[in-house]
Amino acid sequence: MNIGIVGIGCIGSSLARDFIAQGLGTIHICDSNPEFLRDAEKLGLGQTYTSDLTVLAKHTDIIFICAPVMAIPDIIRALIPHMKEGGIITDVGSVKGFVVDAVSADIPSHIHYIPAHPVTFGTTGTGPSSGREGVFAGCKYILTPCSSSNQDGLNIVANIARQIGAEPIEMTPEQHDRILGFTSHLSHVIAFSTMQATGHISRILGQDVMDYAGGSFKDMTRVAASDARMWRDIFLSNRDQIQSGLDALVQQIEILNTLMQNNDAEALEKFITDASDMRRTRFE
Amino acid sequence: MNIGIVGIGCIGSSLARDFIAQGLGTIHICDSNPEFLRDAEKLGLGQTYTSDLTVLAKHTDIIFICAPVMAIPDIIRALIPHMKEGGIITDVGSVKGFVVDAVSADIPSHIHYIPAHPVTFGTTGTGPSSGREGVFAGCKYILTPCSSSNQDGLNIVANIARQIGAEPIEMTPEQHDRILGFTSHLSHVIAFSTMQATGHISRILGQDVMDYAGGSFKDMTRVAASDARMWRDIFLSNRDQIQSGLDALVQQIEILNTLMQNNDAEALEKFITDASDMRRTRFE
Repeated sequence: MNIGIVGIGCIGSSLARDFIAQGLGTIHICDSNPEFLRDAEKLGLGQTYTSDLTVLAKHTDIIFICAPVMAIPDIIRALIPHMKEGGIITDVGSVKGFVVDAVSADIPSHIHYIPAHPVTFGTTGTGPSSGREGVFAGCKYILTPCSSSNQDGLNIVANIARQIGAEPIEMTPEQHDRILGFTSHLSHVIAFSTMQATGHISRILGQDVMDYAGGSFKDMTRVAASDARMWRDIFLSNRDQIQSGLDALVQQIEILNTLMQNNDAEALEKFITDASDMRRTRFE
Repeated sequence: MNIGIVGIGCIGSSLARDFIAQGLGTIHICDSNPEFLRDAEKLGLGQTYTSDLTVLAKHTDIIFICAPVMAIPDIIRALIPHMKEGGIITDVGSVKGFVVDAVSADIPSHIHYIPAHPVTFGTTGTGPSSGREGVFAGCKYILTPCSSSNQDGLNIVANIARQIGAEPIEMTPEQHDRILGFTSHLSHVIAFSTMQATGHISRILGQDVMDYAGGSFKDMTRVAASDARMWRDIFLSNRDQIQSGLDALVQQIEILNTLMQNNDAEALEKFITDASDMRRTRFE
């Protein structure tokens, strides 16, 4: 199998590492950033390297697009005219509805698009050296079939997901965006906003409050170190679902705050205990 | 030196481990929970074990109170009549103003109270087995002198802090509570509220959204597994400062949300880039 990867950043290069480790086929790498291409070649992440989507399309049976969400539709449109009959395009974007809506009308019947999203660890690095082998092991690999998907293509992507240790799961693009808007995008909103608030508070208090940051602060803001363009795209392309998640969170913050301000010790302890039980039974 | 520890939970037992490792003196352990006392004895965390504060007070030169914040004033008042002339009481509570205000009038001139707070890793366990050796290494050990503090006592606690690898720093109780209200208490408000919101969202969507939680969600909610009574006390005893921290955070969330809803890509990318730069330059 000839596998293409468009965008050899953290996720793209992690996939390349796993594809090599599993011996899944010949890997062709495409990136518009010449430095990333050079680094990928030094790291030996593929067999061919190009900055030209046309060249990549000709060589490959299946292409994984690992680019910022809002760049994906244009990449798909650029690939289509050069792909083989029956070629498969899949992606790893964190928002699905936006891409499906943008490209559905443009995909001809002889090309199959399998929108997908492996839910990983919360990436913070950029470039080919930031990827790691084995990061998809134990992860959910969400497939969100659309009108341009076919069963064969779904099976192929699901099989690759299994081979790199992930668990393929199907749902609608909308379902995906609602769930991930809450479990992933929202925590990035909080992390970026906390860092901004930290700047303001430090200026008001005349000292860098981060000097006194413990583990809880570092954990909550870890993903604030993520790539800015990637997250700008996710926020813009899933804003309605993020808004609903944010509303749900702010509602609970207000409940907790009211209990605190009313000095309602009993109800406050119950609120915390329930939250704590949920976290403990679920993880670790 | 005879050192007392009241409350042999996560922080108390971590201190005990470090005191033993550093050979700081004879350790006397007091806890109202017989199970914790038994476990502490099994783990060999001290030389004597009692549930009676009176007995502990008689044996010791310096006492570390490692109990939930709102229990500290009563413990101090119970210890005072039985302590030696010149005895030192210190604590590790996460809120300082509340305790200082509550006990200042009750401490006689021959007893010295050194309010303190080692800023550690965000504890999540309970009981003597949850502590670990070396957790204070590299941490700030904040001392917030009050009218009942003396220079000798401050020096002794600061020296112990240095011996367990921490960096002693002095500030006022109010300064401490403003800073920690933001860098520590706020992240717990977010973590508990997120878990509660998760429950609601899961009920609305008819599926457990935590099935799709990635690294960012797990990190943001890690401290939600913390002890409920401890955090109830911190929230109630520092609610004004937590409220200001929360206001600062909500303000930034609203700015980010407005940029998102207005589709202002440029300003949104700048907001994220600034936050990301701050996080990267500061940690890791």
